[in-house]
Amino acid sequence: MAPKKVLVVAFKDVEDIELTVTVDVLRRADIDVTVANLNDEEYFVCSRKITIKADALFKDIEKKDFDAVIVPGGPGSTKQETTHDERLGKILQRHEKAGKIVAAICAAPFIFAVHGIGKDGEITGYPSVKDKITAAGYKFREDEKVVVSKNVVTSRGPGTAVDFALCLVKLLVDKEVSEKISQALLCS
Amino acid sequence: MAPKKVLVVAFKDVEDIELTVTVDVLRRADIDVTVANLNDEEYFVCSRKITIKADALFKDIEKKDFDAVIVPGGPGSTKQETTHDERLGKILQRHEKAGKIVAAICAAPFIFAVHGIGKDGEITGYPSVKDKITAAGYKFREDEKVVVSKNVVTSRGPGTAVDFALCLVKLLVDKEVSEKISQALLCS
Repeated sequence: MAPKKVLVVAFKDVEDIELTVTVDVLRRADIDVTVANLNDEEYFVCSRKITIKADALFKDIEKKDFDAVIVPGGPGSTKQETTHDERLGKILQRHEKAGKIVAAICAAPFIFAVHGIGKDGEITGYPSVKDKITAAGYKFREDEKVVVSKNVVTSRGPGTAVDFALCLVKLLVDKEVSEKISQALLCS
Repeated sequence: MAPKKVLVVAFKDVEDIELTVTVDVLRRADIDVTVANLNDEEYFVCSRKITIKADALFKDIEKKDFDAVIVPGGPGSTKQETTHDERLGKILQRHEKAGKIVAAICAAPFIFAVHGIGKDGEITGYPSVKDKITAAGYKFREDEKVVVSKNVVTSRGPGTAVDFALCLVKLLVDKEVSEKISQALLCS
């Protein structure tokens, strides 16, 4: 079986841990991960000043199809230029409609609220975005590290990033691979 | 008070999560973190293919003094060129002797065994390096996520990286700051 293809969206001030944990864990599952910079530059500086090389510029992949589109959080995910990026909104809407996984963690689930992703389902996120997401008419969960609502997956923050990534592996590959990776990471 | 200065040693095939979590969490505590590439190149490629920019080349900082020297793990930390790097051995020995913190996670504690760091104390690490570390005469602990033995701090793997980094914050700054960061990460 061809490996699943996943897009991880990067941008200035993305949360270093959330991005890295997601990419690392998904690649451990032999998922084909593309980190694409929404700012269309070769490098992006994360919120705690780690500079990372993007695999692609967003403009070069925005028309492509993936098995999942994942948006990490961090201060950059709350900036107007990120939350209201039309290309980001479109790729999320297109993938949600096609039944592919769309996922966000930390403050990034607010981007889902902006673009109407997972509108009738449940969602979670960092406590700071709760009011804005609730105001948009969503049911905001605070009792789970990861919320799966149809094909929309959301999670809470850096401390839940491993759970988020392992859940994505479970959905994209299978439970056995997810559990094997959890053991290899020494998560228990 | 001037911020504490910490060296994080990077190299080809360093574990992406362990490096990033350590740097992110320490910078959240306003610690002055320098990621220096032992391979003396501007960029290093982590074990899951994330390319990160180093803050410094190792050759430019090897004579400097830090409040802590931290070595992340990953497959690169088991390569002869890393484990037996004389400059790495010297900076670790000098800092241990000066009573500064020396810390390693995952397979990197084997580097401590190679250079006689923390020889009379307890140590932990990834299960794969247990036998080699025990053979070097160390007492290897498997019942703790993080082991603090005098000024030598060791931990087990990517899944314990947050605990490792929070413990370092507790030792370098204080317990209150460490707990605040743990809460902000949503670790509980």
